[in-house]
Amino acid sequence: MPATTSLIPTRVNPDLEKERRAATFSVEEFQCWWHGGADKLNEKREIETYLYKDLRDGHLHDYLSHEDLYHLAVKDVTEASVKLRKLQKLRNPGGDNIWPKKLYNLPALLPAHHPFATHITMFVDVIYSQGTPEQIEKFGKPAANCNIIGTYAQTEIGHGTNVRGIETRADYDRATDEFVLHTPNLQAYKWWPGGLGHTANHAMVVAQLYIDGKHHGIQMFIVQLRDLETHMPLPGVDIGEIGKKLGMAGVNQGFLGFKRVRIPRTNMLMRNAKVLPGGKFVQSPASRLNYMTMVFTRCLIVNLSYDCLLQAATISTRYSAVRRQSPINSSDPEPQIIDHVTQQQKLFPEIANGIAYRITGQHMWELYELTLKEIANGDYTRMADMHIVACALKVLSTTDGSFGVERLRLACGGHGYLTSTNFSTLYGNVIAAYTYEGENTVLLLQIGRYLVKTWTQLTQGKKMSPLAAYLAEIYDKPEIAAWNDSRSYLVKLLQFTAANKTRLAFENLTNRVNGGQTLEEASNNTGIELTQAAELHGRQFVASAFLEQITVAKKNQRSVALNSVLENILELYLVQTVLRHMNDILRFTPISDANLRSLQNRLELSLKKLRPDAVAICDGFDYHDRVLNSTLGCYDGNVYERLFEAAKKSPLNQKPVPDSFEKYLKPFLKSNL
Amino acid sequence: MPATTSLIPTRVNPDLEKERRAATFSVEEFQCWWHGGADKLNEKREIETYLYKDLRDGHLHDYLSHEDLYHLAVKDVTEASVKLRKLQKLRNPGGDNIWPKKLYNLPALLPAHHPFATHITMFVDVIYSQGTPEQIEKFGKPAANCNIIGTYAQTEIGHGTNVRGIETRADYDRATDEFVLHTPNLQAYKWWPGGLGHTANHAMVVAQLYIDGKHHGIQMFIVQLRDLETHMPLPGVDIGEIGKKLGMAGVNQGFLGFKRVRIPRTNMLMRNAKVLPGGKFVQSPASRLNYMTMVFTRCLIVNLSYDCLLQAATISTRYSAVRRQSPINSSDPEPQIIDHVTQQQKLFPEIANGIAYRITGQHMWELYELTLKEIANGDYTRMADMHIVACALKVLSTTDGSFGVERLRLACGGHGYLTSTNFSTLYGNVIAAYTYEGENTVLLLQIGRYLVKTWTQLTQGKKMSPLAAYLAEIYDKPEIAAWNDSRSYLVKLLQFTAANKTRLAFENLTNRVNGGQTLEEASNNTGIELTQAAELHGRQFVASAFLEQITVAKKNQRSVALNSVLENILELYLVQTVLRHMNDILRFTPISDANLRSLQNRLELSLKKLRPDAVAICDGFDYHDRVLNSTLGCYDGNVYERLFEAAKKSPLNQKPVPDSFEKYLKPFLKSNL
Repeated sequence: MPATTSLIPTRVNPDLEKERRAATFSVEEFQCWWHGGADKLNEKREIETYLYKDLRDGHLHDYLSHEDLYHLAVKDVTEASVKLRKLQKLRNPGGDNIWPKKLYNLPALLPAHHPFATHITMFVDVIYSQGTPEQIEKFGKPAANCNIIGTYAQTEIGHGTNVRGIETRADYDRATDEFVLHTPNLQAYKWWPGGLGHTANHAMVVAQLYIDGKHHGIQMFIVQLRDLETHMPLPGVDIGEIGKKLGMAGVNQGFLGFKRVRIPRTNMLMRNAKVLPGGKFVQSPASRLNYMTMVFTRCLIVNLSYDCLLQAATISTRYSAVRRQSPINSSDPEPQIIDHVTQQQKLFPEIANGIAYRITGQHMWELYELTLKEIANGDYTRMADMHIVACALKVLSTTDGSFGVERLRLACGGHGYLTSTNFSTLYGNVIAAYTYEGENTVLLLQIGRYLVKTWTQLTQGKKMSPLAAYLAEIYDKPEIAAWNDSRSYLVKLLQFTAANKTRLAFENLTNRVNGGQTLEEASNNTGIELTQAAELHGRQFVASAFLEQITVAKKNQRSVALNSVLENILELYLVQTVLRHMNDILRFTPISDANLRSLQNRLELSLKKLRPDAVAICDGFDYHDRVLNSTLGCYDGNVYERLFEAAKKSPLNQKPVPDSFEKYLKPFLKSNL
Repeated sequence: MPATTSLIPTRVNPDLEKERRAATFSVEEFQCWWHGGADKLNEKREIETYLYKDLRDGHLHDYLSHEDLYHLAVKDVTEASVKLRKLQKLRNPGGDNIWPKKLYNLPALLPAHHPFATHITMFVDVIYSQGTPEQIEKFGKPAANCNIIGTYAQTEIGHGTNVRGIETRADYDRATDEFVLHTPNLQAYKWWPGGLGHTANHAMVVAQLYIDGKHHGIQMFIVQLRDLETHMPLPGVDIGEIGKKLGMAGVNQGFLGFKRVRIPRTNMLMRNAKVLPGGKFVQSPASRLNYMTMVFTRCLIVNLSYDCLLQAATISTRYSAVRRQSPINSSDPEPQIIDHVTQQQKLFPEIANGIAYRITGQHMWELYELTLKEIANGDYTRMADMHIVACALKVLSTTDGSFGVERLRLACGGHGYLTSTNFSTLYGNVIAAYTYEGENTVLLLQIGRYLVKTWTQLTQGKKMSPLAAYLAEIYDKPEIAAWNDSRSYLVKLLQFTAANKTRLAFENLTNRVNGGQTLEEASNNTGIELTQAAELHGRQFVASAFLEQITVAKKNQRSVALNSVLENILELYLVQTVLRHMNDILRFTPISDANLRSLQNRLELSLKKLRPDAVAICDGFDYHDRVLNSTLGCYDGNVYERLFEAAKKSPLNQKPVPDSFEKYLKPFLKSNL
């Protein structure tokens, strides 16, 4: 709970208290389940209590200039790092040095974001995973200890998704046993790396390697950018930040150009590919392992997405229980807006989406661990499937997460437009992930091409991997059973439709190839249908995994009451997902008007059933008030007082008359235009 | 064209030149048609040349603190006002004093928005339309001349859409012949009025009128807020700004509370309802006229929406013609990304949407003028229809406009995340309109209830107004003709589906009423279906009006080549709109798989046909570079140079080492955590 001021009552809003009393299940049980047990929940809470005391106002940075905000972000991140280190010494003395990792996701400590993000998530990891023991000693350890700060410089102003297109060169100079890093033109400037602007003093630079003018693919090079004492850019290094963005204010993304900058040969990461003294190039034996790093990052993004979505859902649901507006019966008083069915339709489906991605994401992490184990035993069969599933969940969770956050903001009416509600920050975070680590359409096309290839293999009688087994079933028996009202039937509908969308894309692509187009041209021209098939492949995965996880796996570890709530959420998720894809479902399946009416009834009934539990479900996520950082989302529901208090803090409100009155406004008013 | 600096080439990007040469129609003809003739186009350009010379950097404000941004917005708006006044003296000496109106929509002069918006669009107008001649003399004229600045204070922190719920009171005091304005609690604080924070010295306050404790509805009161010399808030006036928002940075929205503030009785607007000396209340004879003001405002919002959408489409389309990425055939060089079909699918439907709302909006303005004329002759029959159409277009255009702007931003990959592209400003502008002047869901419910009422009248054999005639036709003959490939058939599909969605909502609502619910409860419980019927009612209106305007009305005034392009756009609009509602269409109509394949073919074909014309169509809107204010959208297509130039202007980039290095970062790096 945040410190109270005179303006904010100490009592919880009675409407919220009423909601909490009326819940049909134990919130404590939900919280324990959600956080993996009572011990973990308690640990989380203790850590939060420790970390979140004495924090600055969570919206101070909203009012600063771009430059001052950067300074504050540096202050925040260095203080947070010290705090986390102390915490580790308290809770895990002598243990693994895990503290910097925690910086990745601590919005309460770093509400303006921070310029160490890429250092922590990429620079350190890449050295440890792809550097030699000497490189880990020389660069990895000081980086892990934050004696040097790095970034990961891959994308260029003219080159993003297509990594092969980058133009930064590293030419080997045999005379000095060095690489010469060079930026041949403006388009080849590095652009976007976090912390690169004014924070990092090193970079992991991705460049085209040339030896004696011969190209040896893309390699990674550790380059020092700034003097460690003065922080001045080193000679030949043109560096700065790329300007203001719609979100991630404190990340300090930068640009970087090289004018023939020399680094020792040993600064190329050489765990895999190598350049020997004298310039002999040794090819990498294992490209497959890097592949799993990409999968790992995309799994992390799924976590980010559902987290943003459920934070937004918590804010919007609590506000909807407190806000009163527009009588339902004209003679009655204004109800809580959560009693309007159209409001429920804005809130509850997002709660269901967020929970679905959380549950399915956990399942994906299990598959990920399994895949790693199999790879360690030399079995690569699951890897392609794993890659496709991670892509699909990355795309769906960032898309639904982003537009879900925005729908939830809009569900708060005008007030959602205020930054003190934190919606714009959540949106800025999640929508960025729509683009980074594989732009969503590019990923959908990859999935679509995989599906068509898979369908081709079916026509050739090949065996399917587990995650594509449903395609084989439907290929073998291309009919769907008669309608029934079970939840598994809804999953079958999605699978049947996904398979048929894949078949359609396959047919149209094949026709184009038969008509004389190259496979690539045909893929481009079938692009719309490929992305649609890909989306449905992802949907059926989420729907079937969610169904399995709620109704079978570990069901017995939860009380009847909790399972009943989770089944309501599952029901809403499945019904809305089927309704959402009804344009395709109706194309391939004979569904009667009565079936459609029954779905609408189920939708309305699931909203009605969730109504008394909605606030308690959001309490179940156990978001700390400092994490939500929202005037509308606070646990106590004192929303108007908090809105008012936040407004009062605006620097403009510290003087009754602003300086511009005498300077601009008064002369104008008196000028008799 | 903006001034060039050393960094930016004077040449137009060759890819854009190539696009312009390849267009199948005359851009000049498009521009003239779009702007209502060559004379108007030339006038627009002359005015732009005059107004946009010597403007400040269009993104300067992105880097300022909230407080400094406000000061800059005041400077901008006062300078712009002077400039517009001079312009009027040049071009229309002695003519109507129309200059302040122009401030409403001049993004190039006011890129950070401005705190006079509500003064101009509401305060002045409301006095002129609802004030007495004495009030116009005393307040209206000085307001129109900007000697006083007002705002319109209606919504309260706890009361938005439901105006009847507001709590600010105006009690008549017979002893002094005054009203006493009072804010009874925090929820009753006025909240959101533009310019209220630190700019306006007057407000039009909407309050509950009481005389001798008896309630006389909601009335409007002119209240002076600040001293005209010192700008200090007057006694009893608690005033300030509401804090930072996700957009509209310079609008200076404020809060306002009254502690028994007294104003003369004659400050109540009394053209309609009146309070006489001594306290006798005289009811307003004409509430219907205010109704048309609401309609007018919503029509204006349609203009705002398509304008934002088409600006975003221009930026994104030009960038897509310049950006090269991801080979289609792996051996080829990287193509312009506009050659990827999935990219076309992101761009062209938004162009089509924007044009559809522009064309349909113009038709709506004609209906609006007609309705006003009929009202002047005592004929009110068209008014309800007009209201419903304005609501529907407001909802659809702001929804499609907002999410369209965002889709277009995402179509620019990472770079769209930079504020220098102007996407975030466009989004902030258009998404605000999703909520203001009638929150979209609230409006959809109004439309839905109107539709159900209309259907009830059909069951009673009543005659339909022109805009509901399609419902009567389908009610009388509830079948649809067999599929054909005409465009009018696509409109028929939408109408047939809209009518059936209305019927469904009517049936379900009626069943609920028959089951014992009040009409209001039943409406709430049928809310989801009511909003869906409402959306389709809007869609069929846009589709049929767009079809009519392009293929019949004034067709002969355009060349064959231009009509051919417009028909492609119409085709894409209709096909995509039908595909978008296929979930409902398939429910009510027997469409074969072959029909669906033909629609997909038509979609793909229309994208292909638009490909060579896309850049030229955007040129046809004739947006000035200062209006687009975008590094990616400039006419010359020198996008990388402009991105770089914009980044270089960031204040953080003016020093090689930021101040926070010595203060925070260096001690931290050296601390050996």
